[in-house]
Amino acid sequence: MRDPMPNAFVAGAVDLPEVEAALVARRQRVLGPAYRLFYETPVHLVRGEGVWLFDPEGNAYLDAYNNVASVGHCHPHVLAATARQAAQLASHTRYLHDTVLSYGEKLLSYFPSELCHVMFTCTGSEANDLAIRLARAATGGTGVIVTENAYHGVTAAVAEFSPSLGPGVPLGAHVRTVPAPDARAGDPAVTFTAHVQAAIDDLLRHGIKPAVLIVDTIFSSDGVFAQPAGFLKGAVAAIRAAGGLFIADEVQPGFGRTGAAMWGFQRHGVVPDMVSLGKPMGNGYPVAGLVMQPHVVADFGGKARYFNTFGGNAVACATAMAVLEVVEGEGLQENARKVGAEFAAALRGLRDPRLGELRDAGLFFGLDVLDGDRPDAAMAARIVNGLRDERVLISATGPKGHVLKIRPPLVFSGDHVGIFAERLVRVLARV
Amino acid sequence: MRDPMPNAFVAGAVDLPEVEAALVARRQRVLGPAYRLFYETPVHLVRGEGVWLFDPEGNAYLDAYNNVASVGHCHPHVLAATARQAAQLASHTRYLHDTVLSYGEKLLSYFPSELCHVMFTCTGSEANDLAIRLARAATGGTGVIVTENAYHGVTAAVAEFSPSLGPGVPLGAHVRTVPAPDARAGDPAVTFTAHVQAAIDDLLRHGIKPAVLIVDTIFSSDGVFAQPAGFLKGAVAAIRAAGGLFIADEVQPGFGRTGAAMWGFQRHGVVPDMVSLGKPMGNGYPVAGLVMQPHVVADFGGKARYFNTFGGNAVACATAMAVLEVVEGEGLQENARKVGAEFAAALRGLRDPRLGELRDAGLFFGLDVLDGDRPDAAMAARIVNGLRDERVLISATGPKGHVLKIRPPLVFSGDHVGIFAERLVRVLARV
Repeated sequence: MRDPMPNAFVAGAVDLPEVEAALVARRQRVLGPAYRLFYETPVHLVRGEGVWLFDPEGNAYLDAYNNVASVGHCHPHVLAATARQAAQLASHTRYLHDTVLSYGEKLLSYFPSELCHVMFTCTGSEANDLAIRLARAATGGTGVIVTENAYHGVTAAVAEFSPSLGPGVPLGAHVRTVPAPDARAGDPAVTFTAHVQAAIDDLLRHGIKPAVLIVDTIFSSDGVFAQPAGFLKGAVAAIRAAGGLFIADEVQPGFGRTGAAMWGFQRHGVVPDMVSLGKPMGNGYPVAGLVMQPHVVADFGGKARYFNTFGGNAVACATAMAVLEVVEGEGLQENARKVGAEFAAALRGLRDPRLGELRDAGLFFGLDVLDGDRPDAAMAARIVNGLRDERVLISATGPKGHVLKIRPPLVFSGDHVGIFAERLVRVLARV
Repeated sequence: MRDPMPNAFVAGAVDLPEVEAALVARRQRVLGPAYRLFYETPVHLVRGEGVWLFDPEGNAYLDAYNNVASVGHCHPHVLAATARQAAQLASHTRYLHDTVLSYGEKLLSYFPSELCHVMFTCTGSEANDLAIRLARAATGGTGVIVTENAYHGVTAAVAEFSPSLGPGVPLGAHVRTVPAPDARAGDPAVTFTAHVQAAIDDLLRHGIKPAVLIVDTIFSSDGVFAQPAGFLKGAVAAIRAAGGLFIADEVQPGFGRTGAAMWGFQRHGVVPDMVSLGKPMGNGYPVAGLVMQPHVVADFGGKARYFNTFGGNAVACATAMAVLEVVEGEGLQENARKVGAEFAAALRGLRDPRLGELRDAGLFFGLDVLDGDRPDAAMAARIVNGLRDERVLISATGPKGHVLKIRPPLVFSGDHVGIFAERLVRVLARV
């Protein structure tokens, strides 16, 4: 059986160089059988700088995949902030400290005024897990609606509504899935609303009160569905009419990546009840969070407490503040818009019959790989691995694994687009 | 209603200085109502060094509470390791990197040979959450047995078996609680085994297959129950006989704190199926993990995958490696044993009628505060707040909140014990 994770390394399929074979063997011994590597021949990396990653021989890989190092690998302004605060104090939130508040205020200034509280966690999984706890308390419901290949995290509660983890991870009995908002199947403003309403009706028919509709606002693991902006409005109204809440999972599209806005939900003209944040928030430092409207946490906060030992500690917040300063200071949202448009034009200009629809927003791209008009996951894998051999890092996504997932650090430039396109042409010529 | 958290700040109860009053107001505005501060008058900290914490005026507080900064606040060896690796690469585990393996091998060398895999998370909550996912997959059961005032974390799944979070956080229908192993209620080797067996029987009577017995091996939130070493054996045998697993939660006792051993379970002569690690692992950097026997993850690893974006990244592992080097290089387990014994002797020497039983292991102490022979949470709070005014940090614990919880960084010395005892005597003379 194919691993449900696109671009997963399969041990024994390819002979590896000695050093890498030894590392793979140690991984199986030390980390056990639940870890997965990328690529037919895994990449061994030892250094990063900007959009470049380096192997032990000093070969440079163009990073067109990693959204964690969003302001560039090892950005000096971020490193300095981390080191400075770590040498002062790594306090937690049960003592008073200014940094968690200064950062919280700065972060909230990027949100509509209704979204005025933030709680800090260490991972996006923890943020979505907290969101579901708060939603259950606020609504009295348990029903969860997600897209068919959604990914929202790995805690026990969140894995239950992350179908992209594959058939080995069962969905909860209180979970309903809806098709991704694919414009080829009709206007998503109509179809997505109808599917969400049908899921609500089915939950109610089973005696399950709806608690949330949660979506990654760029539908990354479903294959990237970003257009036309605005299509979420009807679905959000439907879940609210049923007494449920709308959660925007901004772990992937957030912090300026879509170019058009700081957050993916803003492109759709909706104001979520909660917004979860993660990956790029600390440029690699483990920090994440949940932004919310006060009504969501009022009851929970009165009867329960939340404490996350490392969540919101001074080092995490100083680091995250430095990331926001770079996003602002280097104009990275605008760069995502501008370079994203150049990148999209370059990809659309390739005119290879195997390349189908490109779906994009800013510096986030999903590019279908087809055999005629059928999804071609095998060819997508050959392209991903071919680019790896050309030292360009991307991956694949979507329920059928046939969508190229291209998601570079936000400091990507027009020159990098040129390098990417040139190497992709070489790969397409030989695979 | 008293907040179920001992030593929680209550807004408005005491007039605060202007700066701190402003910080409290900003916290409520920014962080919302679910956060809790410590103390009647919260402590405002800006710097840490070794066992000392400093407020903005430069006043020094003796830290006798924080186990996260286990090798001392802002230890230079740890800071250097974090900064060095952060400037190189903060890669994740889908690329090959030596550091996660070197650290994993080093960490596992401190465990019995049966415990030979480690998976990395960012928080102890995530480690226990992963443990319960693996246990469900491995046993086919769902039943969880914990002590009456246990704390294991804050994810949705783990909060369901963390009764110390208070009545506002409901326990799961599949959760059973047992009394803490209090030697005053009979030999814990007999009573704890009997209680666990009764919980197993009750789960089975309800058609719930037992999955795990999970205990903090020092029973911190129950009030600290560490003696006599060995009492866990019968309970572990009972859960295994019922087809369940035993999880040792070492987030609090682990990494040498008990003095007698690196891990609390070792004092009891048992080998757990899984061991969760957290707080002191990175001395403040968010890193945690789950160590396990291979049978626990064999089936899960075949049909599912685990990925934690920041878990096991190179910076987390380089930092955690530096922490282990300090624990070893500075002989901190032996220091916990030696200074722990001095500290215990000093506390036992106080002979104040309000101070009852002291329960201890290494540098972890639970000291009952009594009125006659009744628990006295109000007096415990006066002592905790009195020590805060003397610039010594501890807290309170236990289901009745009457147990002083003393748990200093492992670099605590005999001199620090002297300072602590002198200030405690002053406090006892006036409260």
